[in-house]
Amino acid sequence: MSAYASLAKARTRIYRYQHLAAIASWDRNAMMPPGGNEARAAAEAELQALIHRQRTDPAMGGWIAAAGSERLGDWEVANLREIARDWREACALPDDLIEAKALAGARCEHAWRSQRPANDWRGFLENFREIVRLSREEAQRLSDHLGLAPYDALLDRFEPGVRGADIDRIFGDVRTWLPGLIENVQARQSQHPPVDAQGPFPVDAQRALNREVMALLGFDFKAGRLDESAHPFSGGVPEDVRLTTRYSEDDFARSLLGTIHETGHARYEQNLPRQWLDQPVGSARSYGIHESQSLSFEMQLARSRPFLGLLAPLLKKHFGDQPAFDPDNLYRLWTRVKPGLIRVDADEVTYPAHVILRYEIERPLIEGSIEPEDVPALWDEKMKSLQGLDTRGNYRDGCLQDVHWTDGAFGYFPSYTLGAMYAAQWFAAMRRDAPDLDARIAAGDLTAVFDWQRDHIWSQGSRWTTPELVDRASGETLNPAHFRQHLEHRYLN
Amino acid sequence: MSAYASLAKARTRIYRYQHLAAIASWDRNAMMPPGGNEARAAAEAELQALIHRQRTDPAMGGWIAAAGSERLGDWEVANLREIARDWREACALPDDLIEAKALAGARCEHAWRSQRPANDWRGFLENFREIVRLSREEAQRLSDHLGLAPYDALLDRFEPGVRGADIDRIFGDVRTWLPGLIENVQARQSQHPPVDAQGPFPVDAQRALNREVMALLGFDFKAGRLDESAHPFSGGVPEDVRLTTRYSEDDFARSLLGTIHETGHARYEQNLPRQWLDQPVGSARSYGIHESQSLSFEMQLARSRPFLGLLAPLLKKHFGDQPAFDPDNLYRLWTRVKPGLIRVDADEVTYPAHVILRYEIERPLIEGSIEPEDVPALWDEKMKSLQGLDTRGNYRDGCLQDVHWTDGAFGYFPSYTLGAMYAAQWFAAMRRDAPDLDARIAAGDLTAVFDWQRDHIWSQGSRWTTPELVDRASGETLNPAHFRQHLEHRYLN
Repeated sequence: MSAYASLAKARTRIYRYQHLAAIASWDRNAMMPPGGNEARAAAEAELQALIHRQRTDPAMGGWIAAAGSERLGDWEVANLREIARDWREACALPDDLIEAKALAGARCEHAWRSQRPANDWRGFLENFREIVRLSREEAQRLSDHLGLAPYDALLDRFEPGVRGADIDRIFGDVRTWLPGLIENVQARQSQHPPVDAQGPFPVDAQRALNREVMALLGFDFKAGRLDESAHPFSGGVPEDVRLTTRYSEDDFARSLLGTIHETGHARYEQNLPRQWLDQPVGSARSYGIHESQSLSFEMQLARSRPFLGLLAPLLKKHFGDQPAFDPDNLYRLWTRVKPGLIRVDADEVTYPAHVILRYEIERPLIEGSIEPEDVPALWDEKMKSLQGLDTRGNYRDGCLQDVHWTDGAFGYFPSYTLGAMYAAQWFAAMRRDAPDLDARIAAGDLTAVFDWQRDHIWSQGSRWTTPELVDRASGETLNPAHFRQHLEHRYLN
Repeated sequence: MSAYASLAKARTRIYRYQHLAAIASWDRNAMMPPGGNEARAAAEAELQALIHRQRTDPAMGGWIAAAGSERLGDWEVANLREIARDWREACALPDDLIEAKALAGARCEHAWRSQRPANDWRGFLENFREIVRLSREEAQRLSDHLGLAPYDALLDRFEPGVRGADIDRIFGDVRTWLPGLIENVQARQSQHPPVDAQGPFPVDAQRALNREVMALLGFDFKAGRLDESAHPFSGGVPEDVRLTTRYSEDDFARSLLGTIHETGHARYEQNLPRQWLDQPVGSARSYGIHESQSLSFEMQLARSRPFLGLLAPLLKKHFGDQPAFDPDNLYRLWTRVKPGLIRVDADEVTYPAHVILRYEIERPLIEGSIEPEDVPALWDEKMKSLQGLDTRGNYRDGCLQDVHWTDGAFGYFPSYTLGAMYAAQWFAAMRRDAPDLDARIAAGDLTAVFDWQRDHIWSQGSRWTTPELVDRASGETLNPAHFRQHLEHRYLN
């Protein structure tokens, strides 16, 4: 067997173990009763340790070196590059650290599920200290191994090649115009307040609506499901994508738009290159590129005036008619800009403020210049300076609001705003290729959007580095000007 | 580390992998969309192969030998015996056979889900031939390794220590009185026909009823769930038991009684000795003993006149009142004896006829004296001779009706009737200890039943061999006379 074939075989095995890990994780979040948690945490940690041992199999180093001089096709060359990248990163971390972090993460997240409704920061802090301690150790080891600064080493796992210095530059630029934009947009929107939708919206009707919109957006229900969980996510495997949402009878929009968001993630996964799925080159490019898909669906497409013309009849069908469902009103309603405490409910203008806040806390937390107990005060201060909001004592809607730090996923948050910027760049490119894009969408033809994403993003897996992918897809590397233009065009026109 | 400690550590790891296998299997049957099947089959087979490698780790042989002369407590001695038993059995089978059988089983079962409604025996046969081929190879290897006849070697995995000769003797005895009993009971029952319940019974009301009855029976919803699947089962892990049922608006009783059955399995799992759960000695004793729990709940308890007095008000609550819900009528309704095609719908008098049929087909199938294509004709012939029913051409309600052979679980069927016999023996023992048992049940106090099962069965895990367990619990080893007495008392009094 060639060295490359040995690598491919080892990666297929890892892919299968990761399949089981994905299903166990989905189940834990969407299905598992609380009594299962201790045993599940132990089982998942055992599996993660196994996967880690396989990813760091000493034989791989030799195969990677030897495969470099074997005769390989283009995809195989890219696959070898991705295998080597994963191997280097995995070798930086010892088994016991991985296992301890998985165990602590599962415990912390499970406790968080009841601590959040109880506003119990003290209780949370007890588990969270251990998460931070292990994440710092992880960052330091990655740093030593890869020759990157500790936070950069974490960031590199989510957005390869992007550094803290890049984020500083991009977020620094956003800080110069975002507060002013938020103010201008609010002043402008106050002149034409939209009509709010009147509930209650029965949960069964919402479920049916969500499924119909997912089908409109091309979700393949033979290869995935929609369920419910406290924190919506897209999980599962490319062959069987598991989306979740949550319902409130008062507000169908949160669940619907969240579902559209996750459907963007899902279509990326469902349309990755089938013949390479079991190899690293067949997986999605990065967290930022992934988010560019969910935001392409949720922000660029679903909140556009032409798409809302398609959506309005579906709302009437499932909830009955009401003035709020007029497409122009829906547009004003769903592009309303309003500072708020909850990231996942934020509009696309204030969203970067949430991400900048997380970045400005998690980076010094990892670098050791602040401690876990400093988080609430910093949160309060930054929420005040970025959005003018008071969040003191309200941990539930503050630093307990979501699950990323709970899992120790430091370095993840910047991907959200990078994703928003990529998505704006994709739609700029689409409009260049198809100037009648909006007319087509208004006529119910979404194929131009799907085809562009399939050709340029989905089908490419990890064949290219992120900058190559962005350049091949849009003719230039990441250019945040598209995002600013998108916001100004949508919100100040 | 002592040899025993090394064994215990290895078994804890296996227990965790088995947890993941149980959740993946539950998901496949209760949740997974069809597109996920190929990837899931590969992932589950990979995990089964891993578990098999761990169960057959060559180091274990040495540890088992060495641990025998270490200072061990009673439970540890029993655990060592169970570890050795599992190790011997596992070593009989090579990795590639295990993996091939798991893969073929998952494929066959998945295809069966659409082949059964389509009555597609030809299509099924294609996959089934491979299952039989692999099962024969498995039986032969176990036979060579354990010094048992091939079918006995399979049987031993489900009911350790029981041989085909025992089954011949027990089933031979049943054959002498069962047809006559069925006839007598039918003649007798025809004089007082019960009133049928009038549907429809909305599925949501059935779901709520099932949950309420599960709670009455002590199911711990913090450590388990009830979901839906084509073939009801009890899966998951002791810390998180996953039951399934299926609903039809025409008939609530099938789902309710099925759920009560699975709840019996569940309570055994939920009450196994907590401190030994991750070791073989902490697991349920055998398939027959497991079935004795589901049948204790479904047949001995739930269909008894005193329990039906408790159930009647719940039926009225969820479905409204109707004449059929009178407790005496319910009793006549749910002890009605009627030959039928479907094993899982069979009453407790005709049930052994189904099991005898399966046994008389699967044994020669494994021994090679018949071939897979012979199954339908034999099925027709035996269904005729045992119950006087014609099943020709109706594969869907014949040999395609359930999932056991699809999975290659040959040797499993006899456990059902052994379980019925154990259950009758448990209730005979309970009545000896508590002559007022029926009065207590009628008064809504089920603790005497739960306490007896907990003390004698659940909490004992696999501490004793099956004959020891039966003897300690009931004062004698398996005595099928209790089953016959139970049937005659209930059906001819």
